[in-house]
Amino acid sequence: MSATPSNDNHLGCLYGIGVGPGDPELITIKALKALQRAPVICVPQAANRRESYALTIVHDYVKPEQEIMRLPFPTDDAEGAAQVWREASVMVVERLRNGQDVAFLTEGDPMLFSTFSYVLAGVQDLCPEATVQVIPGISSVMAAAASSQVPLTTHGQRLAILPAAYGLDDLAEATSNFDTVVLMKVSPNIAETLANLEELGLTKQSTYVRRVSTDWEKVIKDVTKITDEDLDYFSLLIVKGNTAEKSRRNPKEKING
Amino acid sequence: MSATPSNDNHLGCLYGIGVGPGDPELITIKALKALQRAPVICVPQAANRRESYALTIVHDYVKPEQEIMRLPFPTDDAEGAAQVWREASVMVVERLRNGQDVAFLTEGDPMLFSTFSYVLAGVQDLCPEATVQVIPGISSVMAAAASSQVPLTTHGQRLAILPAAYGLDDLAEATSNFDTVVLMKVSPNIAETLANLEELGLTKQSTYVRRVSTDWEKVIKDVTKITDEDLDYFSLLIVKGNTAEKSRRNPKEKING
Repeated sequence: MSATPSNDNHLGCLYGIGVGPGDPELITIKALKALQRAPVICVPQAANRRESYALTIVHDYVKPEQEIMRLPFPTDDAEGAAQVWREASVMVVERLRNGQDVAFLTEGDPMLFSTFSYVLAGVQDLCPEATVQVIPGISSVMAAAASSQVPLTTHGQRLAILPAAYGLDDLAEATSNFDTVVLMKVSPNIAETLANLEELGLTKQSTYVRRVSTDWEKVIKDVTKITDEDLDYFSLLIVKGNTAEKSRRNPKEKING
Repeated sequence: MSATPSNDNHLGCLYGIGVGPGDPELITIKALKALQRAPVICVPQAANRRESYALTIVHDYVKPEQEIMRLPFPTDDAEGAAQVWREASVMVVERLRNGQDVAFLTEGDPMLFSTFSYVLAGVQDLCPEATVQVIPGISSVMAAAASSQVPLTTHGQRLAILPAAYGLDDLAEATSNFDTVVLMKVSPNIAETLANLEELGLTKQSTYVRRVSTDWEKVIKDVTKITDEDLDYFSLLIVKGNTAEKSRRNPKEKING
């Protein structure tokens, strides 16, 4: 499956590995095996944070002989980000051309809001002959539904995942068209978001989940009780939309339009 | 964490366990441990199918001494479904009252289009004092993105997951508001769906994934090439919407409304 990392004529394989939302046991068997096999472990390193969260999650699985390669990453869509991703991809391709397999770790899933997608595009561009294998991970969205015991969707329902706290109009539109709307990384805009949910009459249908599946996990079912201490970069809101009644009554009308 | 299954005074614990999309190695360590610890393994058994798909996935992990309890389930939102779920919940609660832990298995994730949500509601209603633990699983959505190497979302993007092939207007609305739209279980309506995608100019932005992560997996990047032989109950389409250009240009305008 993977290229042999012992011969200059062989390219290494790039693995994009989702390590899950925080609990080290929420990694898959496949991801753990690929992670432990790779000579080089690669993690994005945001300038304003101490250590890669993904690396913290798998700390106990990494072997002393594995090299940790930290790739500097921008924390936002700031100007110059494309250049930074390009440089990161160049560093990865160097290792692949050396015949080394590279395991790129991301918290959650590598294809959902992950920096891996930028490195994937960069490597495909710089070295299209390289083999890439992506191993999915448990997203914080599914983990938050599990911890809060709030189902995301049942038969015939619709789910929307939005990257941040949107404005009132956007939120109104999403919650009238979708049975469940998940708002990712809500902490920076929590006050505005809670005000918007209140305005739309959705406060009682909302659940806040902080740092899911870790010792610092907190599930808040009454979101009016959220305080500054409850906030965290890794936090989300699960909002039940206003379509639920409608779709339960007329499932056939919604499906196949 | 779990109740002790040895004493009539103790209730058993209900575990809702996601076993992932098909590859037995795409189960998490946590799910595998909980699955192997439970004396009773519970699976939904649709009347029109030979064996529970979830059980097939974990076949090699189940020990001979574990009891397999098959719960009859309707295959659709047919009338009488509520009664069937109620009866299934009664069967589960009986075991919990006997002090036995019950592991309810679902393919993919237990909170996304899973029958577990009905049993969860039934058990919470019939036996609110029972302890429930939900262990998330890899959804076919993330697995399909991994296999096809089509990222679902990058920074600032929006994802919609729809339960089936919707009509033209629904699809037009979703693909103009969301960067990526995933259509679940598309096979029964594939001809209509492909015609709608063509009408909307989205054919080249669509990827079909059948039975992801199994030996029967097939990724089709040119969806005009899909034939009857490519169809399967477990199939989905990843459709890139028409918002991509817009959101990349003006990420700040979209976020925080």
